Amino acid sequence: MALRVQKYGGTSVADIQRISRVADRVIKAHEAGDQMVVVLSAMAGVTDKLISLARQAAITPDKRELDVLLATGEQTTAALMAILLKSRGYKARSFLGFQAGIHTDQTPGKARILDIDAQKVKKALDQGHICVVAGFQGADNNGDITTLGRGGSDTSAVAIAASLKADVCEIFTDVDGVYTTDPRICAKARKIDRISYEEMLEMAVLGAKVLQIRSVDFAKKYNIPLHVRSSFNEEDGTMVVNESADMESAVVSGITCDMNETRITLKRVPDQPGISAKIFGPLADAEIMVDMIIQNTRTGGETDLTFTVTKDDFDRALQISEAVAKEVGAEEVLSAKDIAKVSVIGLGMKSHSGVAATMFKALAEENINIRLISTSEIRISCVILAKYAELAVRALHAAFGLDGDN
Amino acid sequence: MALRVQKYGGTSVADIQRISRVADRVIKAHEAGDQMVVVLSAMAGVTDKLISLARQAAITPDKRELDVLLATGEQTTAALMAILLKSRGYKARSFLGFQAGIHTDQTPGKARILDIDAQKVKKALDQGHICVVAGFQGADNNGDITTLGRGGSDTSAVAIAASLKADVCEIFTDVDGVYTTDPRICAKARKIDRISYEEMLEMAVLGAKVLQIRSVDFAKKYNIPLHVRSSFNEEDGTMVVNESADMESAVVSGITCDMNETRITLKRVPDQPGISAKIFGPLADAEIMVDMIIQNTRTGGETDLTFTVTKDDFDRALQISEAVAKEVGAEEVLSAKDIAKVSVIGLGMKSHSGVAATMFKALAEENINIRLISTSEIRISCVILAKYAELAVRALHAAFGLDGDN
Repeated sequence: MALRVQKYGGTSVADIQRISRVADRVIKAHEAGDQMVVVLSAMAGVTDKLISLARQAAITPDKRELDVLLATGEQTTAALMAILLKSRGYKARSFLGFQAGIHTDQTPGKARILDIDAQKVKKALDQGHICVVAGFQGADNNGDITTLGRGGSDTSAVAIAASLKADVCEIFTDVDGVYTTDPRICAKARKIDRISYEEMLEMAVLGAKVLQIRSVDFAKKYNIPLHVRSSFNEEDGTMVVNESADMESAVVSGITCDMNETRITLKRVPDQPGISAKIFGPLADAEIMVDMIIQNTRTGGETDLTFTVTKDDFDRALQISEAVAKEVGAEEVLSAKDIAKVSVIGLGMKSHSGVAATMFKALAEENINIRLISTSEIRISCVILAKYAELAVRALHAAFGLDGDN
Repeated sequence: MALRVQKYGGTSVADIQRISRVADRVIKAHEAGDQMVVVLSAMAGVTDKLISLARQAAITPDKRELDVLLATGEQTTAALMAILLKSRGYKARSFLGFQAGIHTDQTPGKARILDIDAQKVKKALDQGHICVVAGFQGADNNGDITTLGRGGSDTSAVAIAASLKADVCEIFTDVDGVYTTDPRICAKARKIDRISYEEMLEMAVLGAKVLQIRSVDFAKKYNIPLHVRSSFNEEDGTMVVNESADMESAVVSGITCDMNETRITLKRVPDQPGISAKIFGPLADAEIMVDMIIQNTRTGGETDLTFTVTKDDFDRALQISEAVAKEVGAEEVLSAKDIAKVSVIGLGMKSHSGVAATMFKALAEENINIRLISTSEIRISCVILAKYAELAVRALHAAFGLDGDN
């Protein structure tokens, strides 16, 4: 008998028929003797519909109240699923975020889980209930409803799995698992059977979008095996687990491509102590997330400073940069929105040299110019012109031996 | 400075434009210096839509889970109103039922309020917030979401008003107030300016449907003046208040008509002790509410026993009655669905004789045969054939001097 937490995304619960199919799957596992916790997202499209309703009421809806509104989406799905399971003769019980003991900080719209007291869920499980939890939501110290941000149901599921010491947390979605790269870009992309938390984190950050990043963080922290799989078939998907010896054979596990970045360069900035703080302080104050930062020292006590921000933040970041440039005496501000960031990710990089060389060579052979480079322990990213993005992904996929037979 | 609780029904908040108009009204009172609590129903049609969704999931949806589902309706309106008020620059805050401290028993679908701790609302008011409360909902001892039944938002509003010792509880609806009778039946119906809780209770029970009955009970118990008025104009509506000396001048305040009753008669029942229990015990066990009970003793130790139940309960009640009739040896069971109950209601009845005589005479003059009669301290009801209902209402309205000039 295992304790399984299953999370189903919006497309898997888009209507009563699909909710019913999810119920079939849950019942099957329950009948096989497993204790089942089901975490649900809002029905596909509902969250967007609620946001549009809020925008009819106010151009910038108050964040606390928007959370109260959005939380109804998952509440609806959880209640419907419990109704369905009970009508089929099973003991079932819905839990809203706060009822499942999900306690968050007070950051509406992107609250962080502080702790979980899933005792009520545990008790219901022990009484033979199938527990249905509304994902994406929690409550703060004041008892105010909060939401965990897009993809937050993943984090709800992993957090509950951690609290209950579940054997596995299954993330059901509309794809078969995590792929070596985006199959829409590269026909030879293959499903990955096992991947480490670290690699998954890099994949998620860089745009694979299968899992909310924080859910992977959480799973890693509490060592909860994640199984990312399709709700439309019975195939195994991708296991996201602790780094293990057999994984290291693959040097590179996946290639990602992020089209959402923009580049801003301050040219000929006086190279003085404190100059970076003068530039990045105001950006941080404006809550603009800076991704890559690259500084090239020029001769003559000047430097070029380049950084990337998301497309959403571009206009504000550019405005701030131009003001700062004037203040510190930079020559000019250059910017580009037509860029892409391609990355290769793999635990094996730690022990294998030559990954960077292979990457640069593969891009050079396609005549793709690299604008910026950044690296982490298990990732190398290159910024290139957006128009070369797909070509670059396919070239790297082949160069690192990831191409499948299909 | 007054503390006002305002409740708006579904048609008053049917879309963002109407919610915005409600906000105008609330803001106006707030600007005038009043402390404002706004209790909202779900947008018109939403509750029905949710019920139909639940019925797609199960023929008889589980009641606990249905409450979780239905509660999203009021949650949505409350959040939207708070978003709107805040976007206009006012301090506002939404409260779900449990956040407003509405504590109920554990009867899903028609929970009763056990007590209210509106301290959070009080505190927010004192900080200058407009408080927006999701009507219709509360939470029980387990922290489970409950709902208060159709019209439950009225009761939410009155209960909060009682807890906050509000100066007035205003019930905004789509009619101008309480009328002497249904204006759709009698063109000469007039709006009543003041009516006692007792009369309003009789009016509500008998089908005036302006206020949930329990809300009037609550208001009476805590002596909260109710103001029933239209959300579509600024006119005063009907004040529902404690019985006072000046009210007694009107002998009859209103005429009601209930088309939802059916009649069942057991003929020639042996007139023995305990026979009533044998008949009404099984009906009570089946949770069938019996309204009128009339027993006519015949000669020869037999009696005819007649009672009325709602149309919804008719089939089950008839089935039970036929089984019991066989058991106790009654001659036959007669029934009728084409009946109406017309009633005259007035505090003045207590001190004036002749009301019954006037009523019977008015019906007789129209050749309307009375099938059953029942009375309370401030009400006389006659069951007649349904086809005479409108005629009877108009005749009684005129006979008791209620006709207006319009």
